[in-house]
Amino acid sequence: MQSKKFGNTYFVRLDKGEEIVACLKKFCENEKIKLGHVQGIGASSRVVLKFFDQKTKKYHSREFTGEYEIAPLAGNITTKDNKIWLHLHINISSKDFKAYAGHLEAAIVGPTFECIIEKMNGNVGRRFDKASGLNLWDLEK
Amino acid sequence: MQSKKFGNTYFVRLDKGEEIVACLKKFCENEKIKLGHVQGIGASSRVVLKFFDQKTKKYHSREFTGEYEIAPLAGNITTKDNKIWLHLHINISSKDFKAYAGHLEAAIVGPTFECIIEKMNGNVGRRFDKASGLNLWDLEK
Amino acid sequence: MQSKKFGNTYFVRLDKGEEIVACLKKFCENEKIKLGHVQGIGASSRVVLKFFDQKTKKYHSREFTGEYEIAPLAGNITTKDNKIWLHLHINISSKDFKAYAGHLEAAIVGPTFECIIEKMNGNVGRRFDKASGLNLWDLEK
Repeated sequence: MQSKKFGNTYFVRLDKGEEIVACLKKFCENEKIKLGHVQGIGASSRVVLKFFDQKTKKYHSREFTGEYEIAPLAGNITTKDNKIWLHLHINISSKDFKAYAGHLEAAIVGPTFECIIEKMNGNVGRRFDKASGLNLWDLEK
Repeated sequence: MQSKKFGNTYFVRLDKGEEIVACLKKFCENEKIKLGHVQGIGASSRVVLKFFDQKTKKYHSREFTGEYEIAPLAGNITTKDNKIWLHLHINISSKDFKAYAGHLEAAIVGPTFECIIEKMNGNVGRRFDKASGLNLWDLEK
Repeated sequence: MQSKKFGNTYFVRLDKGEEIVACLKKFCENEKIKLGHVQGIGASSRVVLKFFDQKTKKYHSREFTGEYEIAPLAGNITTKDNKIWLHLHINISSKDFKAYAGHLEAAIVGPTFECIIEKMNGNVGRRFDKASGLNLWDLEK
């Protein structure tokens, strides 16, 4: 991983074999990025997508092995109990260009992943919501 | 719906049952966001996508019922005749992770939709263009 | 093509028949945008997608003729040997709303393409990396 900062914008390059979700989380922790958004493109050699079943309130997941283009990854950075929380969704395509998308659980970087993180000053926490079974943004003033 | 503002950036949470296009339009009206862009992720329980037929100059639409991840929604905020105009495209995935995309007509929020709106100062209007049959950005200086 | 600048943000409209990658590159050259990111939505009448084969280190491509919605295009602007280098990925949908995605080689604009470019001050160069066969971001300090 390499990174460079321009104002509140970080250009972050992840390298072959690194896992996107864990690396970005660690990066945000190190840089104290508690609020922001993320956009990224690149390629992956293994992706685990999750889909939230609104009835059972559980995720099911599917592992995509092989090579995939990332087009794009998008998400946000907030906190839960003062710890950094990434919420990332991703759209990937296989070699026949068909697209698959979902909640990103994990993705191993292929040759490269190019990520732009925009940091905001402030804080948005998450609070567990019983009705949905999810940790939702708490934006109460 | 809840929202919080950080500089020119709004974090907007839409809740179960709210319709994304109508809610975001009303939010922009209330906050006087006449120019900006939007990025969002989340889940939906019903989506209507439109596809513009360049020959007939008409949209056809398809309703997707059931549950979908949003990965991602992207679009821009401009005006037409001084009224706020949202142009949103969306990529959704069903429980088998296959992706479907198009022009977003309407989407009912599933458990949550997390949206980041960046506001710009200025104005971009739209003007009806006979040749295409669409309201295009008017960027003449 | 028309454009308008608001702070460091450019709203760029491409018109029917223009090729997205070439037009945006020329636009960045004219405006001296050496670092930034791009988000766009619209429609295309012909798209060439590429997929990078991590084993052979070669791209294969597929031409998509017909009409497609763009939902969305995302990418970044850097430099290689001091020349502007666009890296764009795209997600497109055909009239049955099925999504296809990949590295964008070229796309002819349908009725319109609406693009927002965010310019940063600074520079990120690319350097050829033998191991991957790609020109990777050079973020060494």
